[in-house]
Amino acid sequence: MAAKFLGWDRITLVLICTRNPLNIGAAARAMSNFGFRDLRVVNPYQVAFREARSAVGATPLLRTAREYDNIAEALADCSLVVGTTAARNRKLGHKLRGLREGARLIRKRLPAGRVAILFGSEKRGLSNDDISYCHWLLRIPTREEHPSMNLAQAVAVCLYELSRETSIAWKAEKAAATAAALDRLATILLETLQTSGYATTAASKTLDHRVRKLIRRTALSDEDAQLWSGMLRQMLWKMRSRDQS
Amino acid sequence: MAAKFLGWDRITLVLICTRNPLNIGAAARAMSNFGFRDLRVVNPYQVAFREARSAVGATPLLRTAREYDNIAEALADCSLVVGTTAARNRKLGHKLRGLREGARLIRKRLPAGRVAILFGSEKRGLSNDDISYCHWLLRIPTREEHPSMNLAQAVAVCLYELSRETSIAWKAEKAAATAAALDRLATILLETLQTSGYATTAASKTLDHRVRKLIRRTALSDEDAQLWSGMLRQMLWKMRSRDQS
Repeated sequence: MAAKFLGWDRITLVLICTRNPLNIGAAARAMSNFGFRDLRVVNPYQVAFREARSAVGATPLLRTAREYDNIAEALADCSLVVGTTAARNRKLGHKLRGLREGARLIRKRLPAGRVAILFGSEKRGLSNDDISYCHWLLRIPTREEHPSMNLAQAVAVCLYELSRETSIAWKAEKAAATAAALDRLATILLETLQTSGYATTAASKTLDHRVRKLIRRTALSDEDAQLWSGMLRQMLWKMRSRDQS
Repeated sequence: MAAKFLGWDRITLVLICTRNPLNIGAAARAMSNFGFRDLRVVNPYQVAFREARSAVGATPLLRTAREYDNIAEALADCSLVVGTTAARNRKLGHKLRGLREGARLIRKRLPAGRVAILFGSEKRGLSNDDISYCHWLLRIPTREEHPSMNLAQAVAVCLYELSRETSIAWKAEKAAATAAALDRLATILLETLQTSGYATTAASKTLDHRVRKLIRRTALSDEDAQLWSGMLRQMLWKMRSRDQS
């Protein structure tokens, strides 16, 4: 599992002029969740950065975050700089890419050098000056009527998309019931239905089919087929013991 | 663009025992960003819910969020219930799916009925009781060393993944059983088991959970849930009529 994340060391998250300490903390937490390590903050609101660092539960990653006075310094060792934006049409001569396509391109570029992903302040996003440092812009596909995301949530979504390579299915699949187990279940169910008076003997052939189909529609595991059989057997026993008494 | 989101009306986000008003607000904001509309809160920390609703910039969606005292009521009209978890190995007999695969399955199920996605409290996540209402569990693929995400960020990532594919195949599927129909079935099955002597009253709480889970594992259509309920009711009647005679 760890191997999956090794390449992410080449990705740098840059928060510019962030004002809310909770957002800085949450960005760091998301980085830690998805296996990223290099966080840089440019001109943070000083109180916010101090608060975020000293917060209970602050990630170790936040304590190693580097602070810069200007964006040029923060990006000095990066060979690809990608800005994030909620705007659909920015006339800045920058190419705008959707997150999915953008993430793919970023992953492709990792062997070539460090990639920086920039997030602007909560209120104004990236300034034109910030954007002038970017190679292209990235946009999370949000709804036209309400495009602007919460900063910490936007960070999490970007990192999620960047870190996904393949779907990991954590299935612990249970063995499906065999046809034999289903037949046993059908038989006991049918018997229970007849004993209970639900089924009249006249309609039994049709019911036989209906019960068999019903049981097959329910996609039972082997364990569950046995569980149902056991429950029905008990009911059958109860009904019969009353009949004899 | 608007057409893209029509199907998302069938998805319900359920926040259970959320304590932080910022998380409720941010969850609502992410829903609005990605085009979802139906938010339900179960047993929220009252102060948190009031604060979140009255916060400056609260989304209209938050003002229409419905509040419930218990999870069963909140899920009554839902035919698929998916719980979210950070745990990699939960021994609860529930299938655990990665977000990508899970989102695909959820989209597939939308034509059959309403789908609820459950998020537990910030500290403890979903309780075992909450989970017993789920058909399966969803997990965002985070790093083993730091799997637990911030609640609002987890919500955003899930909604992003859900909304990323726009093609929903509106096949004329059979309506899936609603949570209310499954609850009725669970109740009658439980009663039948107790009457038959399969269940002793001592073990009833555990059995209650087991029966609820068993029924949710079987992916019943609304029609089949009614069929099973009818059959069990007949057996129950038979057992009881014998007792009285």
